[in-house]
Amino acid sequence: MSVKMTVDGNTAAAHVAYAFSDVAAIYPITPSSPMAEVSDEWAAHDRINLFGQKLRIAEMQSEAGAAGAVHGSLAGGAFTTTFTASQGLLLMIPNMYKISGELLPCVFHVSARALAAHALSIFGDHSDVMACRQTGFAMLASDSVQEVMDLALVAHVAPLRAGVPFLQFFDGFRTSHEIQKIDAIDYEDMKKLVDWDKVKAFRARALNPEHPHQTGTAQNPDIYFQNREAANKFYNAVPAIVEEAMKQVGELTGRHYKLFDYVGAPDAEKVVVLMGSGADCAEEAVDYLVSKGEKVGAVKVHLYRPFSVEHLMAALPATVRKVAVLDRTKEPGSLGEPLYEDVVTALREAGRKVDVLVGGRYGLGSKEFTPTMVKAVFDNLDAARPINHFTVGIVDDVTNLSLPLGETVDAAPSGTFRAKFFGLGSDGTVGANKNSIKIIGNHTDKYVQAYFSYDSKKSGGITVSHLRFGDKPIRSPYLIDTADFIACHNPSYVTRYNVLDGIRDGGIFLLNSPWTLEEMETALPAAMKRTIARKHLRFYNINALEIARGVGLGNRINMVCQAAFFKTAAVINYADAEVYMKEMVKKTFSKKGDKIVNMNNAAIDNAISGLVEIKYPASWADATTGAVPVRVEATEYFNEVIHPILAQEGDKLPVSAFDPSGTVPTGTTKYEKRGIAAFVPKWIKEKCIQCNQCSFVCPHAVLRPVLLNAEQTAAAPAGFECKPATGFAGMNYAMTMSALDCTGCGNCVNACMAKEKALVMVPAEEITETAQAGFDYADKLPAPDVKINKATVKGSQFLKPLFEFSGACAGCGETPSSSSSRSCSAIA
Amino acid sequence: MSVKMTVDGNTAAAHVAYAFSDVAAIYPITPSSPMAEVSDEWAAHDRINLFGQKLRIAEMQSEAGAAGAVHGSLAGGAFTTTFTASQGLLLMIPNMYKISGELLPCVFHVSARALAAHALSIFGDHSDVMACRQTGFAMLASDSVQEVMDLALVAHVAPLRAGVPFLQFFDGFRTSHEIQKIDAIDYEDMKKLVDWDKVKAFRARALNPEHPHQTGTAQNPDIYFQNREAANKFYNAVPAIVEEAMKQVGELTGRHYKLFDYVGAPDAEKVVVLMGSGADCAEEAVDYLVSKGEKVGAVKVHLYRPFSVEHLMAALPATVRKVAVLDRTKEPGSLGEPLYEDVVTALREAGRKVDVLVGGRYGLGSKEFTPTMVKAVFDNLDAARPINHFTVGIVDDVTNLSLPLGETVDAAPSGTFRAKFFGLGSDGTVGANKNSIKIIGNHTDKYVQAYFSYDSKKSGGITVSHLRFGDKPIRSPYLIDTADFIACHNPSYVTRYNVLDGIRDGGIFLLNSPWTLEEMETALPAAMKRTIARKHLRFYNINALEIARGVGLGNRINMVCQAAFFKTAAVINYADAEVYMKEMVKKTFSKKGDKIVNMNNAAIDNAISGLVEIKYPASWADATTGAVPVRVEATEYFNEVIHPILAQEGDKLPVSAFDPSGTVPTGTTKYEKRGIAAFVPKWIKEKCIQCNQCSFVCPHAVLRPVLLNAEQTAAAPAGFECKPATGFAGMNYAMTMSALDCTGCGNCVNACMAKEKALVMVPAEEITETAQAGFDYADKLPAPDVKINKATVKGSQFLKPLFEFSGACAGCGETPSSSSSRSCSAIA
Repeated sequence: MSVKMTVDGNTAAAHVAYAFSDVAAIYPITPSSPMAEVSDEWAAHDRINLFGQKLRIAEMQSEAGAAGAVHGSLAGGAFTTTFTASQGLLLMIPNMYKISGELLPCVFHVSARALAAHALSIFGDHSDVMACRQTGFAMLASDSVQEVMDLALVAHVAPLRAGVPFLQFFDGFRTSHEIQKIDAIDYEDMKKLVDWDKVKAFRARALNPEHPHQTGTAQNPDIYFQNREAANKFYNAVPAIVEEAMKQVGELTGRHYKLFDYVGAPDAEKVVVLMGSGADCAEEAVDYLVSKGEKVGAVKVHLYRPFSVEHLMAALPATVRKVAVLDRTKEPGSLGEPLYEDVVTALREAGRKVDVLVGGRYGLGSKEFTPTMVKAVFDNLDAARPINHFTVGIVDDVTNLSLPLGETVDAAPSGTFRAKFFGLGSDGTVGANKNSIKIIGNHTDKYVQAYFSYDSKKSGGITVSHLRFGDKPIRSPYLIDTADFIACHNPSYVTRYNVLDGIRDGGIFLLNSPWTLEEMETALPAAMKRTIARKHLRFYNINALEIARGVGLGNRINMVCQAAFFKTAAVINYADAEVYMKEMVKKTFSKKGDKIVNMNNAAIDNAISGLVEIKYPASWADATTGAVPVRVEATEYFNEVIHPILAQEGDKLPVSAFDPSGTVPTGTTKYEKRGIAAFVPKWIKEKCIQCNQCSFVCPHAVLRPVLLNAEQTAAAPAGFECKPATGFAGMNYAMTMSALDCTGCGNCVNACMAKEKALVMVPAEEITETAQAGFDYADKLPAPDVKINKATVKGSQFLKPLFEFSGACAGCGETPSSSSSRSCSAIA
Repeated sequence: MSVKMTVDGNTAAAHVAYAFSDVAAIYPITPSSPMAEVSDEWAAHDRINLFGQKLRIAEMQSEAGAAGAVHGSLAGGAFTTTFTASQGLLLMIPNMYKISGELLPCVFHVSARALAAHALSIFGDHSDVMACRQTGFAMLASDSVQEVMDLALVAHVAPLRAGVPFLQFFDGFRTSHEIQKIDAIDYEDMKKLVDWDKVKAFRARALNPEHPHQTGTAQNPDIYFQNREAANKFYNAVPAIVEEAMKQVGELTGRHYKLFDYVGAPDAEKVVVLMGSGADCAEEAVDYLVSKGEKVGAVKVHLYRPFSVEHLMAALPATVRKVAVLDRTKEPGSLGEPLYEDVVTALREAGRKVDVLVGGRYGLGSKEFTPTMVKAVFDNLDAARPINHFTVGIVDDVTNLSLPLGETVDAAPSGTFRAKFFGLGSDGTVGANKNSIKIIGNHTDKYVQAYFSYDSKKSGGITVSHLRFGDKPIRSPYLIDTADFIACHNPSYVTRYNVLDGIRDGGIFLLNSPWTLEEMETALPAAMKRTIARKHLRFYNINALEIARGVGLGNRINMVCQAAFFKTAAVINYADAEVYMKEMVKKTFSKKGDKIVNMNNAAIDNAISGLVEIKYPASWADATTGAVPVRVEATEYFNEVIHPILAQEGDKLPVSAFDPSGTVPTGTTKYEKRGIAAFVPKWIKEKCIQCNQCSFVCPHAVLRPVLLNAEQTAAAPAGFECKPATGFAGMNYAMTMSALDCTGCGNCVNACMAKEKALVMVPAEEITETAQAGFDYADKLPAPDVKINKATVKGSQFLKPLFEFSGACAGCGETPSSSSSRSCSAIA
């Protein structure tokens, strides 16, 4: 029995893992954490696994402990799983050798993630799982959310038969967080694949003092090698066991898998070999290219370990002359990345000759991988001198390994609708979009896909929602590069981001702004107007904030924008959409009372009546005037590197923009005045005891104490407040604040040690301008040459001048260096 | 300036590491610990490194912490090193990515060791370093003690020039613990290779608040990939940098290295590729085979990462048609082991075609690797169907991957003298042999090599010393398989071990025994007599114990045996040897007074006068009678697996002897009655309070409490002691002891809770027989069906019957299972 679910890859994996596990020993790490979270929730709701019990989730103190707990739990006869990624997986490596060495069947579900090297990345690639390829775990790669569901089942069925542990992985922050409408497999169906005699045998094998055995001994040179070879037959048997399990899953679901799945022309001459979500993208690209008559294909690797030469050869058409192997990892100093070396070795062992055989890297740290890049990989194979060890998806202007990209390939099957939404973190855009795909997914036969990209600023940052709807399965595991619809939910974005990048000719642009057509002449940048006109966009505006406030929803514009989307995009009939939206409003808010329900319904109604199609003039096609983005005066590094990143154009930065060791200058945040705090601290100088604790605890260095002499005090801007400094005769003291850098957390107020708080939070608009002027003034003052002594500076250890002190310390007599000033005996 | 040192590989590595390091952050793990220990000792003696300071050694709480400390120390501008192996190295993997990612120059010195899988092994192979090949560290392999000295220097010179961290490794428990006479490199000479401007630049790069920079940032998908590629040029430059450093070291020392060193026929058709001590062995074998006219060679891999195709190709003669790549690691489920896949890929990329290209595994967990095995690898290349993914050195009768071995190849250069000594752990044999090689090493031009193998029983176990002396450098990194001299320092060994295995025709056999020729007729086994006669051995006996006791040295036979060795082996003139031995006695014991010196000198003199050449009859060649080894009645597993291991014949066990998961039956120790304790505990029943704590703390389960009914008490053997059991009406209680299993640690006496100790240590001979009889009797008694209740069993929780209790518990009313009995509420 198959049920449709609209879920992400993490949930799909957890669905199967829960069914087959007694115990999950975990430690949370992005992007794997939702697997444990959703499992925990199911357990809290008494979901029962295939063995008639609830999953027991044990959170340990690190992934090293989790792996140890998995090992112990398995030895105790409990079916055990874990969910992890990246550095967390690395911490499990020592125990992985033990688990595989002792032939303990289990499954690790890994949302594959990059490893911290020159910099940390929480995003996806295969560096972590590749660091485990030598541990003796079998490794299964899933390419999409549906495959995670199906192959997780294979991954759980196989170990019990094979006696070998499995690592099932899928791309972190792509498949893990991509929402798709998929067929879920029912637990009753899963049960049919369980070998109950093997279950019994596994339970019986548990360490038990009633019939003791010993495991994990120490062996000397005389016998270790022989015993290490004794497990060969288990590994030799795995490919056939996985094949059989895939067959059974196929019979159950109608979805058939092979160890290596080939897609493309049966007489392909050029083939790419890869695994993970990139393989799904390659399939889309190959389908497109084959439809244009190209003889290309793709081998999607599912069973990566044990690596079966025989099965790879069976997948590869006899006509293949050129092969590119794509690895989503980088191993500096290696001859080539691992999948590439495996394929080279496999071809050699099978005696298969090809004319061109190259390897390349793609998608590190969730770098986009698109059909355009797949095309570039095929083009490289036809080059007179194909680049080996290439990269694709970046511009490498240092070692020149990157492939040039051609025209954007729009490989999506016709009928796919692609919609992109720019929102502000916590403005409700992402939540509304999740509702939209549920509405469309649940009420139609359409396939749906959603992926949400964020910057790293969380609340107050930018969110971009990528939604696809289609009549055919959606194999586009990449951000929308060609859009049918783009919504911009924040008017300030029109000058900050290239919002309309990638919109197709005749596409739809929905803007939330308070502007009339006339105001848009100056409010929109010239380039945006040109794009609107030259691409013949249908352009709608809605004053969502006004409507939301009008019905009493305050700043919550999500319902208004959602209605406007359904109306303008017309993915489904609007009348139906209205019914579904209102049903959802009822479901979501009925507990909060009719008033809230009615407010939201009104928002929907008013959205439609307030929606305006902008009949822009044809002259926009040649617009040269309009809003100009504000550029602050900053360092070259900020302008050349940070600014493009903030403008969402970091993808275009070439390799040469970066220091190879990942080193970056400090102090660049000051050029990005975000001004996101609604409330900021106001200094009440009369109450201040000059302890500087507020400055110490401020996570954004917003509050900074300064000392000023009489002359400096006199020259201060209007409204600058100060008071005589304690312990510094003739000097004034001020606690200055960079209000535009404040996030409004209030730590400073909590930390204030004065009897009555010397800081209070006030609405930002009340003081920002004055406070900022004072801060900017004080920030430029030279460090004063002050006398300090033990008694008077006590408690002032974070006073700014101390770090830039120019004379000998009056307390200890030494000339403190920066590194020693914190421990100067005078201020200790 | 070159100085000869007779040291092991660990000391050689530490010698260089100390010179180049400010900080060593470590955590001790076998077999790497001596590197840190010797460094610590040098620091304690104020040795100064190249930068004019002492090495600071920081021992952390694990290798994970050590790696973190290395990272932090490097970021702070200190030259930093670490020493580790095996699981310890695995714990460093996460930080290794960070260190390489940030291009921090440092050196990890690794005594490469096996990883715990089906079983733990403290011995050598490359599994640990191979688990790090993807971390971005450059990797240098050293094959011998001399190479460790030379390449450690390369490893420390190169990172500063390359900006890439290095992992320098050598075979654990071979090179790490093999003692060789080598040329040491003077610190003044090392200084010449230091780039002082780079030193300055590195120091200047330290994190410093006076000129701050930021490192270790988090990067998003837009820029992570580009930045990860920015370091390519650093890796591309490493091969040339290492080549240059090798050239400079060559100019300094006269010993020249290449990234890949080729040895053998210039027109070789067959070549093996390998690294580590096995490469030294291959060189010896190749020299031998080439001298016999064979066209063979070996490529010794030094720079494994970055892997340079160009340099490998330059090393490989153009005539090569067949290649075998040997990996000292196993990666279950991989297509092939890593070096093999690298060589396959390198040949493909270089367009070099060969007819045969296979990979194989050898030497896992310090399994022996000898010229005989190298020959087998070459022979496999000539087979009609060469085995790929073979193993060599074992008999794989399960998956049939092992290569058959031919006749033993004696590849040592003529003039090499090989001596083997069987001793008892802590009898002084190993120490005496260390002195012998110092004497010969220091006073002659001879090359010396020593390796000591132990069983895992430490004190009281077997030690086998392997000493080689020669006029040419000794490239035999394996145990002596063809011996010129064998000494057996313990008479009981003649029936327990095949002591004379591998002795050459006309060799020398030195036995320490109290036996006359006549007594030897029955004291020696028939097989030993046959070997002595058929191999025409010169056979000497010495009653070392009698001589040692005679001069007042008690059981310390080492000086006697050493003198006998020098006299009989005649590696150097005995008159000289006597002078040197007596000089060493003086040096060692003069602080303890003339009496001790004189006793030792007397031992030397009396050894020579007491040495007897045994003029055995020719009839020994056909001896059929003699001593027969005692075999206990035991389980099949003990007989088939444990017994051969105890007889030092574990190497001969085939793969099929082992459970693939490493599981073994328990309770086999009881068949190996060692009787090694000089003092054992005696139970004084009158004082016993029946608390059973002595039984609880005994690490060998020697002490076991039992309950007996009247009938059982009556049937007990003579001398069996017992007393009325507390809380078990009508039963008697006894604390029985398996004296032959006791190690004499005395924990039981310490743990005794009686007011006056109910256990005292007494000489074993006083009570062993009676105690053992009582233990054996009680051990066979059926578990009694007793009544227990809360009050009376308190404190008796480890009482044997509780684990085999047949009825309901009188305390809690439940029928306790074994697993629950420890927590039964009645006895909690």
